[in-house]
Amino acid sequence: MSEVRVHNFSISLDGFGTGEGQALDAPFGHAGERLHEWFVGTRFFHAMDDLPGGTLGADNAFAEEHNPGIGAEIMGAGKFGPPGWQDDPDWKGWWGPNPPYHTPVFVLTHRPRPSIEMEGGTTFHFLDTTPAEALAQARTAADGADVRIGGGPTVVRNYLAEGLIDYAHIAVVPILLGRGVRLWDNLESLNHTYNIESVSTPTGITHLTFTKNQ
Amino acid sequence: MSEVRVHNFSISLDGFGTGEGQALDAPFGHAGERLHEWFVGTRFFHAMDDLPGGTLGADNAFAEEHNPGIGAEIMGAGKFGPPGWQDDPDWKGWWGPNPPYHTPVFVLTHRPRPSIEMEGGTTFHFLDTTPAEALAQARTAADGADVRIGGGPTVVRNYLAEGLIDYAHIAVVPILLGRGVRLWDNLESLNHTYNIESVSTPTGITHLTFTKNQ
Repeated sequence: MSEVRVHNFSISLDGFGTGEGQALDAPFGHAGERLHEWFVGTRFFHAMDDLPGGTLGADNAFAEEHNPGIGAEIMGAGKFGPPGWQDDPDWKGWWGPNPPYHTPVFVLTHRPRPSIEMEGGTTFHFLDTTPAEALAQARTAADGADVRIGGGPTVVRNYLAEGLIDYAHIAVVPILLGRGVRLWDNLESLNHTYNIESVSTPTGITHLTFTKNQ
Repeated sequence: MSEVRVHNFSISLDGFGTGEGQALDAPFGHAGERLHEWFVGTRFFHAMDDLPGGTLGADNAFAEEHNPGIGAEIMGAGKFGPPGWQDDPDWKGWWGPNPPYHTPVFVLTHRPRPSIEMEGGTTFHFLDTTPAEALAQARTAADGADVRIGGGPTVVRNYLAEGLIDYAHIAVVPILLGRGVRLWDNLESLNHTYNIESVSTPTGITHLTFTKNQ
């Protein structure tokens, strides 16, 4: 069966996957870009924007795992837009006409709308359903390829808590945010179901990998 | 001036410095020994108990920083004994007649009692006062040497929050506890006052060091 994967999901030392006060001009609230500086600096990220340069090395090796083999993404409403985007019929995500997904993307929201087909192969679908049912639909859309759980922290946490994730790469950034949305709440049971590795890189990031026990 | 240091303070991935349900037979609650297995396995820890063996390598290098230059420790009531130890006039800590401190130790408690002189140079003093005032007394007792803030998580957090710590070594253990006492609550401001490094070792521990900016 295809796998369910998390990649490059960044949290602070104190476990926040996004800051407080998300808004149109602050997608990660008071965290700003600090959680993702390591990621946007990589050659992988540069290449997504058709930019030259970017870092190689260990951080880029993790970053590069993001897309290969992925046939669909599931994301939360807070990743798709700022609070209230459901009231804006023209909102099509933060990413412009050609979003960096190039697959079907399933957005979990209590106020679904008709699907939106974008340039470059991305189609946004909107679902008001359980994590497991959304995954079933995403698997079908992925047509045998893997499904990425794209965040935010609440969505990743819910999929982890239900044991639906096969592999998760979490990047711990050496900052303290103090407030925001925590990834780790109530995940004690993961300890028994995953093999956990840690490796820190010279940039200060600690990459955690969770691999589900067979 | 002498420095204020934290060493080998262990937390889970989700930031808990001790588990839930501390008791006489469970000093770290449901966490058991899992937070400290890496530490008790080192040659440093073995030597404290006059035992042979123990691991060398990076974990032991961090462990060995524990004592040199330290002239006093400050600890919280929860490190000194299980809930209710204040009702037991014979309670003298978990460590037997010759505790592993060999310096004055200041125990923060709202119910102080007379000082207790133990074998091997450890004397327990009991203070009902602020972190800063306790530190002033510990500095005097240390007679020019450094002061270690020994835990638990609430005490380390309070000293960090007040900017009183010069150097902190925090060991992140790759387990999820889910519940207990968090180290990181409300420490956002540390980001501006400390240089933070991370290094993970082959045993899976990520060692964080916080060095106060000059």
